[in-house]
Amino acid sequence: MKDITLKEIATKLGISITTVSKALKDYPDVSEKTKKAVTALAQELHYTPNSFAVNLRTKESKTIGLIIPEVMHHFFSNVINAIIDEAEKNGYLVIILQSNESLSLEKKQVELLINKRVDVILISLSNESNNDEHIQEIINRNIPFVMFDKISKLSKCSKVVIDDQKAAFNAVQHLIDNGCRKIAHLRGPLNPQNSIDRYIGYKKALEKNNIPYDSKLVYTCENVTFQEGIDYAKQVMEEHPDVDGIFAITDLVAVGVLSYFNDHQIKVPEQVKIIGFSNWFMSQVLTPKLSTVDQPSNEMGITSFNLLLEEMNCHKNETEFTPRTVELQTKVIIRESSIKKE
Amino acid sequence: MKDITLKEIATKLGISITTVSKALKDYPDVSEKTKKAVTALAQELHYTPNSFAVNLRTKESKTIGLIIPEVMHHFFSNVINAIIDEAEKNGYLVIILQSNESLSLEKKQVELLINKRVDVILISLSNESNNDEHIQEIINRNIPFVMFDKISKLSKCSKVVIDDQKAAFNAVQHLIDNGCRKIAHLRGPLNPQNSIDRYIGYKKALEKNNIPYDSKLVYTCENVTFQEGIDYAKQVMEEHPDVDGIFAITDLVAVGVLSYFNDHQIKVPEQVKIIGFSNWFMSQVLTPKLSTVDQPSNEMGITSFNLLLEEMNCHKNETEFTPRTVELQTKVIIRESSIKKE
Repeated sequence: MKDITLKEIATKLGISITTVSKALKDYPDVSEKTKKAVTALAQELHYTPNSFAVNLRTKESKTIGLIIPEVMHHFFSNVINAIIDEAEKNGYLVIILQSNESLSLEKKQVELLINKRVDVILISLSNESNNDEHIQEIINRNIPFVMFDKISKLSKCSKVVIDDQKAAFNAVQHLIDNGCRKIAHLRGPLNPQNSIDRYIGYKKALEKNNIPYDSKLVYTCENVTFQEGIDYAKQVMEEHPDVDGIFAITDLVAVGVLSYFNDHQIKVPEQVKIIGFSNWFMSQVLTPKLSTVDQPSNEMGITSFNLLLEEMNCHKNETEFTPRTVELQTKVIIRESSIKKE
Repeated sequence: MKDITLKEIATKLGISITTVSKALKDYPDVSEKTKKAVTALAQELHYTPNSFAVNLRTKESKTIGLIIPEVMHHFFSNVINAIIDEAEKNGYLVIILQSNESLSLEKKQVELLINKRVDVILISLSNESNNDEHIQEIINRNIPFVMFDKISKLSKCSKVVIDDQKAAFNAVQHLIDNGCRKIAHLRGPLNPQNSIDRYIGYKKALEKNNIPYDSKLVYTCENVTFQEGIDYAKQVMEEHPDVDGIFAITDLVAVGVLSYFNDHQIKVPEQVKIIGFSNWFMSQVLTPKLSTVDQPSNEMGITSFNLLLEEMNCHKNETEFTPRTVELQTKVIIRESSIKKE
C-alpha cells in the first residue's frame, strides 16, 4: 500500500501543504477552485486522511471497541447483534475482537483498541481474566468503559450483569421441586465470576433443601463445549448411576448431555431431569425440549450500549459520571426435560 | 480522553519535540538518560504513540480486517476461529466487523478499515453486495484482499470458495436416489452468488433425472433463519401435501423444518426426506439426525489467511502477485433424515 502524503498533493498542484490541508477540511479561506483541484487529486491518488488527525479534530472516532471471549455461544452473538443495532442507530461502528478466552490475547486487543483510539470499550472478560493491568489501563485513561456478563467484581467501571447465584439457585430449586435428590452440576471453569456464582447458587439450593453437598457430583467443563456435555454425561452415569438431576452451566453443555442420553436410552425426564442455562433457541428444538434459565442477551446489549452513551455524554458535557452496575432479570423456563413424569 | 502530545512532554522536560520523538523511537543519537526520562513521563501521562505514525515507520500495523455478514450461523463462527488462530500464530490481530447483511454498513466498515490502515482485508459479502465501489476501492488501493464463501465473481481478487452448484446437485441427487420425486427447495435470497448456485444445482439435479422443474416448489428465505424453516415447512405442506423431499439452503433452515415436522407428526424420513447444507454440529443432535452437505469452514479460514500472507509477502518483496481462486471440497453427509425407510 502506497502512502500518498499531503506534501505530494501540494507539490503536484504547486500550493502549500497548509492550503491542501485546509482545502480537504473545507476551510472558508480556500477558494472553491483550489478545493476542487485538491479533492480531485486526493481522490485520484487514493489519499486517506490520517484518521488520528481527524480524531484529534473531531475528538471522536465514532467507533466502539467490543471484546468478547467467543462467538460460538449464541448468547454472545445475540449480544453482538443488539450492540451493533444500537450503535448504528447512534452513528457508531463496532469493532469486534474475540479473545478466545485468552488473557494474553485480550491484553493485546485492549492495547490495539487504545492505539486505534476507539471512543469507548465494551468487554466481556475471558475465562482467564480478572481485574488485570490492561483493565486498569482503560479505567486510568478515562475511556468510557462497560463490562458485561463476564465481569470482574473488583474493577471500578459500569457493569451489566444478571444475578447468577439467584438464577442458578432457582434452576436447582426447580429440579428439587420436581423430585430430584441427587443432582450433578456440570460447572464452568474455576476463575470466571459467573461460573463461580452459578456453582454457589447450586450449593445454596441443596443446602436450603437439606440435601448434602457432594463435591464428587461437581464436574468442571474447562471449555464449556457440547463435547464436554457428552463426555461428562457418560462419566456421571458411570460414577453415579443413581443421579436423578443435572444442572449444566449453559445450554450448549446441557444439549451435549441430552444428546448422549438420547443415544444411550437414558430417559429424560423419567430417569434423569436436565436443566441448562441461557435459553438458546435450539433448546426448544430438541426431543425432549430442554428446560433452561432465560438470560436476557438482547437487553444486555442494549443496556450496555446505553450506559456507554451516558458516560460519553458526561465526558462531552464535562460532568461527572459515576460508574454503576445494572442487574437484569432472569427466569426459569420449564420445558419437557425437567418435569415430573409418573 | 485527554490527549497528551509530544509537545507537552517536551515542554515539561525542557527538551525539543524532535528529541522526545527520537527518544521514544530509541534512536541512537539520544542519551540513555534522556530516553529514560521521556519514557517515564510518557508512561506517567499515558501517552499513546500516534498509531498512524508508527505504521508509516514500520509499514505494517499487524492487524487484519475481517468483515462477515453475521455470526449467528455457526459456519462463520468456525471460520472466524480458524482465522484468529492462524493470525495469532503469525503475530496478527483480527478486527471483526459484522455487516448484518447490509451493503451500506459494509461500505462504512470498509472505509473504517482503510482509515484505520489495517494491513489486509478479508470479506464474506453481505446478501446485498456485489462488485460494488467499496470493493473496487480495496483493489485499487492494492491492499492484500481475499473474499471467502460469499463472493462476487466479477471482483479481481483472491477467493476461497466451494462449488455450491455441484454440492447442491449432489445433495438433491441423494434425495432422488432415495426415492424422492417431488422435492421443494427452501432457497436463500436472490442476490448472493452461493444462494444462486445452490438453486442452479437443485434445478440441474432435477433435469438430469427427468423430474420437471416447478417454480412453485421453490421458496425464498429472505433472512435464512430457523423461523423461516418453521414457516415454510407449514406452507409447503399446506400447498403441496405430497412433497416427499426438502432441500434447505442451510442447516439452520432445515432444523426449523424438522422442528415443525416433529411438532406436527409429519414423519421424517418416511413421509418427507430432508437434507440441509453446512454440517452444523447441531444437525447430529436432532431426532432424526439431519443429513447435510459438509462445508469445510475451518479449512476455509486457514486457506484464506494463507492466501493473504502470500499476497503480503509478495508486496514486501515487491514481486508480482496474481490473485487466484481456491476451491475447497464438500461432501454429502448421510444421516437419518434422508434415508430410505420401507
